[in-house]
Amino acid sequence: MTVSETERRAMARALELAARGPRGVNPQVGAILLSPSGDILAEGWHHGAGTAHAEVDALSKLTPGAAHGATAVVTLEPCNHTGRTGPCAAALIDAGVARVVYALPDPTPVARGGADRLRSAGVSVEPGVLADEARDLLRSWTTVQRLGRPHVTLKWAQSIDGRAAAADGTSQWITGPDARADVHERRAQADAIVAGTGTVLADDPALTARAADGSLLAHQPRPVVIGSAEIPADAAVRRHPITLQQFRTRDLGAVLARLRADGVHRVFVEGGPTLQSAFLREGLVDELLVYLGPVLLGGPGLAVGDIAVPTIADAHRLDIRDVHRLGADVLLVARPASPAQQGDL
Amino acid sequence: MTVSETERRAMARALELAARGPRGVNPQVGAILLSPSGDILAEGWHHGAGTAHAEVDALSKLTPGAAHGATAVVTLEPCNHTGRTGPCAAALIDAGVARVVYALPDPTPVARGGADRLRSAGVSVEPGVLADEARDLLRSWTTVQRLGRPHVTLKWAQSIDGRAAAADGTSQWITGPDARADVHERRAQADAIVAGTGTVLADDPALTARAADGSLLAHQPRPVVIGSAEIPADAAVRRHPITLQQFRTRDLGAVLARLRADGVHRVFVEGGPTLQSAFLREGLVDELLVYLGPVLLGGPGLAVGDIAVPTIADAHRLDIRDVHRLGADVLLVARPASPAQQGDL
Repeated sequence: MTVSETERRAMARALELAARGPRGVNPQVGAILLSPSGDILAEGWHHGAGTAHAEVDALSKLTPGAAHGATAVVTLEPCNHTGRTGPCAAALIDAGVARVVYALPDPTPVARGGADRLRSAGVSVEPGVLADEARDLLRSWTTVQRLGRPHVTLKWAQSIDGRAAAADGTSQWITGPDARADVHERRAQADAIVAGTGTVLADDPALTARAADGSLLAHQPRPVVIGSAEIPADAAVRRHPITLQQFRTRDLGAVLARLRADGVHRVFVEGGPTLQSAFLREGLVDELLVYLGPVLLGGPGLAVGDIAVPTIADAHRLDIRDVHRLGADVLLVARPASPAQQGDL
Repeated sequence: MTVSETERRAMARALELAARGPRGVNPQVGAILLSPSGDILAEGWHHGAGTAHAEVDALSKLTPGAAHGATAVVTLEPCNHTGRTGPCAAALIDAGVARVVYALPDPTPVARGGADRLRSAGVSVEPGVLADEARDLLRSWTTVQRLGRPHVTLKWAQSIDGRAAAADGTSQWITGPDARADVHERRAQADAIVAGTGTVLADDPALTARAADGSLLAHQPRPVVIGSAEIPADAAVRRHPITLQQFRTRDLGAVLARLRADGVHRVFVEGGPTLQSAFLREGLVDELLVYLGPVLLGGPGLAVGDIAVPTIADAHRLDIRDVHRLGADVLLVARPASPAQQGDL
């Protein structure tokens, strides 16, 4: 059976609903129940750990029996797991749902198997609808599930020829106001922002997410500094609304593990050349944001230092996913090309 | 009087006609004669030095008197100069043309003044129509007129972080087949292709413009090598259909002057890091093509070396004019931002 245009539209709507839920231990999931003629019977989404899953949230809005023969359109494979809530696959079967369309398979060992259970009960099952869009929504969650660490976005600004600063260390401004505004919006989507002590001492960054007028955006990433140098009491980062967390270690894996344990899913690294080269060398990057300012600098102020590439066959290969023009600048959004390095489904 | 949509369309057509002419000592120019009701009466273009100018070419296709009251749409201000041909402004006045619409003013001291002459004769004159498009067409010609040297396009391929090679010097391939095909098409639009001896000895490039199957494109740029090292008799560049020209000097200005004297208007520099840094340092670049391959390399193999930027205020500022995706790669087309550095009108 093929996927109808109505089901595809319902999936797009389910993804919007999913995004309403909080990012956290559980994935963001949305669900729509369609009547056999394609009308929307009910909508639901997951409101966070301990609350109903999206499918059950939608079913709860109908009178018993009203979902009989319906199609459930869900952004993630219905779970087969009894935790704080019962298995959604069973709930859909019990409600008499005739067909289930979903976007992504459940990647967790404990919850997977819902599709098989549905099929065994005679339900028509169709996976993979708008899977790319669902993957984008759940990227950081799936990284945590698959790699056991937070999703890491590495950001830097450079001249076209790969310099972060002129020969004397000056760098304001390689990129313009549109690029800086874009950075602040993306900071606000992260749970933590990470810099090295070298950058904190040299540039005194606030590590906050700010609007163009300098005011703080609603969501602030927590400030994290890596390195053993002492951060002065009057450093801008000490005025961050969230208390600075400092890791006096070079073990980036240990830092990420600790952040994950503290509930951090999305890490935004604006580390400075030494720290960003270390993240790259250790293969701990899921997404790269390279802001190219329209200048050439030459000289020794490189944005990326040694990343352990003795010969071209060892190059860090990337997929350039998006190219955005931001005022006079260009933003490249890239991901590691090797699936082994990625946190993707 | 404002410019009508009919006149604007005619200018677009005149630019197409202009591009049919050869690039050379004279500019490429196209002309259209429109009847008072907007119908095309005749088309013309300049076929090269010693032949009729575009306006006269168009007029020659009409019977005497047929252009009376017509509008001439010309890509360059009609000349006021008697050379191998008479002044076009006078020819248009004599033909009874009532209105002249043109794109660009004539930048040459000897030929300018045609618009004034037309106005003095009571002809309605409208400059600046599709000026950007005309400027693009005549870019190399105007560079030669204004700066007295050929138009220089500097091309290099690099990793996103600005490296032309891995630590051991290997670089095949940072960019993919689509980017390489694009380079060959652009080489075929140049009159000369310039490389340094270091690159010729290290990479043994053919410096030809080739199709994907390796066959030579119809137009070949002449191969030029700068540097004093001896080029081996069996070097690929010695099999180029045009004989290699070697300049044993570091005086790039002198090289460009000699090339201009030899009729070269468009120079394509694929020099290698040392030569391209020298062209940048000396401000001898009109257009930059930076092909970004989707890799990170780190290490010492920089695409751009020292370009005399001690501090950020001295940065070489660029305008990024176009961003193209070519397969997995990205091409940035840029020009120096300072008008003083540019060969623009």
